[in-house]
Amino acid sequence: MKAQALSSDRKEARENQTPSSGLFFKVKKVLYEKRSKFQKIEIIQNDFYGRVLFLDGLVQTTERDEFFYHEMLVEPALCSHPAPENVLVIGGGDGGALRHVLQHPVKKAWLVEIDEEVIKACEQYFPWLEASLSDPRAELAIADGFDFIQNTRDKFDVILVDSSDPVGPSAILHQRDFYFKLKKILKPGGIIAAQSGSQILHLKEHADKARFLKKMFKVSRFYSGPVPTYPVGTWCYNFLSDRIDPLKVKELRIPAGLKYYNEEIHRAAFALPVFFRQAIGLS
Amino acid sequence: MKAQALSSDRKEARENQTPSSGLFFKVKKVLYEKRSKFQKIEIIQNDFYGRVLFLDGLVQTTERDEFFYHEMLVEPALCSHPAPENVLVIGGGDGGALRHVLQHPVKKAWLVEIDEEVIKACEQYFPWLEASLSDPRAELAIADGFDFIQNTRDKFDVILVDSSDPVGPSAILHQRDFYFKLKKILKPGGIIAAQSGSQILHLKEHADKARFLKKMFKVSRFYSGPVPTYPVGTWCYNFLSDRIDPLKVKELRIPAGLKYYNEEIHRAAFALPVFFRQAIGLS
Repeated sequence: MKAQALSSDRKEARENQTPSSGLFFKVKKVLYEKRSKFQKIEIIQNDFYGRVLFLDGLVQTTERDEFFYHEMLVEPALCSHPAPENVLVIGGGDGGALRHVLQHPVKKAWLVEIDEEVIKACEQYFPWLEASLSDPRAELAIADGFDFIQNTRDKFDVILVDSSDPVGPSAILHQRDFYFKLKKILKPGGIIAAQSGSQILHLKEHADKARFLKKMFKVSRFYSGPVPTYPVGTWCYNFLSDRIDPLKVKELRIPAGLKYYNEEIHRAAFALPVFFRQAIGLS
Repeated sequence: MKAQALSSDRKEARENQTPSSGLFFKVKKVLYEKRSKFQKIEIIQNDFYGRVLFLDGLVQTTERDEFFYHEMLVEPALCSHPAPENVLVIGGGDGGALRHVLQHPVKKAWLVEIDEEVIKACEQYFPWLEASLSDPRAELAIADGFDFIQNTRDKFDVILVDSSDPVGPSAILHQRDFYFKLKKILKPGGIIAAQSGSQILHLKEHADKARFLKKMFKVSRFYSGPVPTYPVGTWCYNFLSDRIDPLKVKELRIPAGLKYYNEEIHRAAFALPVFFRQAIGLS
């Protein structure tokens, strides 16, 4: 816990993706460094990736490659829903998911982030966050995601879980009880999309999740896409719904200006490799 | 040129994937180190990836993740061809591609590697190479790939270009003249598959290649797949043929025992993201 990315000479930041390997970034400048109540927050400037946000030593987002992750977390669900009006984003204090949600004709988009210091740091260094929060449709709640969903009286068309990884302090946001409660605040015909961890490293966690999700939702599919700075380059997501199968949507409502996601990527993302199918108990 | 991966204290090996970022590997043991006539060859033992081969400081293959690359280089072409009898692999001295070719009912498979020292090192440390070379259908030629294809009198059903990257000494193997000559030794109805570099980093090179390949072959498609230890995690390949469109093959002949590639991955791999379509001049 509270690991940091910066080396002692502050010339390099690194993430240990496995116990014996990882990514390094040359540090052009340390932009921000603080221990909040919850975690170590670091933002560095790197020549290739631009600004890079680390929480407890793990890359959360970079200016250059954030679109891979945020588009794939947001677009398959938002583009598949026929009329997403009320959207909830749990986690994602960097604002990348919220920004993509607001490119759709939603009426209200909640961002629920546990750590106010992450919001403050990102408002300063990732300009899209401030722009998104100043949208009149956006609502920010500084709260524990689990508490928020137990206490809200709202119901949502789309819920996006932009949590940390399935190993570590956010493990609870990948477990049965959390999804059971999420389902209670999902409108009929609603969709949940969640980041699920590394497609390659977190196979046991995907298998555990697959087991309870398929009992809980009529449609429960994993999908994936590249994220260059996440371990080890290919990321995994869940698409959950009782009514909408992403592979049977006739008309995807795709906003203009995306860099990764399009109709052919939507269909391709749900293809699962042999090792993954075996791990989650499919053929 | 002749860059090395090992740090001066030999405790770490690293690849600079961009001028300011890259991958690091803790070195459990340095297994092999030699400067050949062509390049610096290093093989290290890493706890997560197993044996890792570097040429001039660039990861070529690791025991743990080689299957991503080798299956995606070999299987789409070999599984699409109705009867691949005579196969040529250019480069790929580590033997991973050859091994996959030999899992198909081919009659002869040539491996053409420029650097005999790579063969010797890999025979010692990647046991699949020796096993593949001892298959009576395998033929090894120590030769420059360009010279080999100019001089051979054979023609091939499938040609696999397992070269180094489009930037650096192998750039010539990504250019028009090379493909022009390859086409001359391809049987009617044959297929060429080639590694084409990082889907994300080498956009200019993909664009250059797309321009001449689409004039040269009736079917010219890019496809992609993850390779955790290649820059920056997603790799790109070409599928070239005058007769066979990989998206219209009715029956893929898929060998047993693969870890990544299956029928749904075959179709999904040809989906291209927005930024890539734009870079190569599609829509």
